[in-house]
Amino acid sequence: MMKKALDLSLYLVTDRGLTLGRDLCTIVEAAVQGGVTCVQLREKDCETGEFVELALQLKTLLDGYNVPLIINDRIDVALAVDAAGVHIGQSDMPYEIARRLLGNDKYIGLSVETLDEAMVANALDVDYIGISPIFSTQTKQDIKQPFELEGAKRVVEITRHPTVAIGGIHPHNVARVMQTGVDGVAVVSAIVSAIDPQQNAKELSSIIHQNKKTL
Amino acid sequence: MMKKALDLSLYLVTDRGLTLGRDLCTIVEAAVQGGVTCVQLREKDCETGEFVELALQLKTLLDGYNVPLIINDRIDVALAVDAAGVHIGQSDMPYEIARRLLGNDKYIGLSVETLDEAMVANALDVDYIGISPIFSTQTKQDIKQPFELEGAKRVVEITRHPTVAIGGIHPHNVARVMQTGVDGVAVVSAIVSAIDPQQNAKELSSIIHQNKKTL
Repeated sequence: MMKKALDLSLYLVTDRGLTLGRDLCTIVEAAVQGGVTCVQLREKDCETGEFVELALQLKTLLDGYNVPLIINDRIDVALAVDAAGVHIGQSDMPYEIARRLLGNDKYIGLSVETLDEAMVANALDVDYIGISPIFSTQTKQDIKQPFELEGAKRVVEITRHPTVAIGGIHPHNVARVMQTGVDGVAVVSAIVSAIDPQQNAKELSSIIHQNKKTL
Repeated sequence: MMKKALDLSLYLVTDRGLTLGRDLCTIVEAAVQGGVTCVQLREKDCETGEFVELALQLKTLLDGYNVPLIINDRIDVALAVDAAGVHIGQSDMPYEIARRLLGNDKYIGLSVETLDEAMVANALDVDYIGISPIFSTQTKQDIKQPFELEGAKRVVEITRHPTVAIGGIHPHNVARVMQTGVDGVAVVSAIVSAIDPQQNAKELSSIIHQNKKTL
């Protein structure tokens, strides 16, 4: 099976701690119905059995919408549920090992936190890079200096990979983020913590498509 | 490559929190020189990159002594470093998925915390079971009622698998543990926190071999 290009337009990253007590699968389904094009399951303090269970539930759900499931960090979980791929950070599995374990048919996304890391990523056959964070955010604690709009624009200029920006992106700033030339935006709380996740996804999706740079 | 039977006699499980500030690799090497026959790397709060790095160091070290390296829980890490196998608990990756991902040439050990779990394990092609815990211990918090010597004896009677007992085993009680008929004992603090890990391993190893049940 040949990989097709990933649609990074509106990329949802999960966080069960931010659902305001609601079921994650319900939120993800609403988000997908609102226009989310890719879902990353991120679990940082979860036993492997529960992680696999949750990944399987999301996989089944997302297969019905033809939306790819990406697993954060855990290549074992991605392999276990035959996810579309993984997203790795700079402290996760080294890219070359991840690629060897997953093969060429799976997507691998890599977070870059500096321009230098974006340069280094040009030597790797990653499927996309995450520009992380573009703005400061409460969702991730272990982050470096935000890129801001200017930094994101620089990354877009120097990288040979598709790009998705993450961190503090909400309806009020998503147009400006898209105007940097990124291929998409990743959000956590803007959807997961929204009163109406489907409506928020729809709003984000609409602004994203209006502001997408075309070559 | 055909799997040979794992020598479970003296099975070291690591815990970097219990080394009293000493380097883990140094302790593991001393332990192996003292008679440890199998090493399990257990890391519960470690980023994947660091886990892989540490596993690679131990793998290189242990290959030199022809001692197998088992990775706790993380099949991705085991695959990344070509470890001899994994040890999984009841809340980790389901056995069938673990076997599919690792193939038949790798060892899979499974912790059982009740007699019922030991019965269920008879239906699985695990390479050994861990009787966990045999005594109460401070090393693991998430454990059930200890088996005690009588419980371990019952597991040995009903299981079709090789067995290793874990939990609160030290030189003063290891003879009685071996007399239950288990194939070996697993220790953490008895070696990792020992003033002289090599000497403690030697002492344990000697008692284990004197008290090994032969058919």
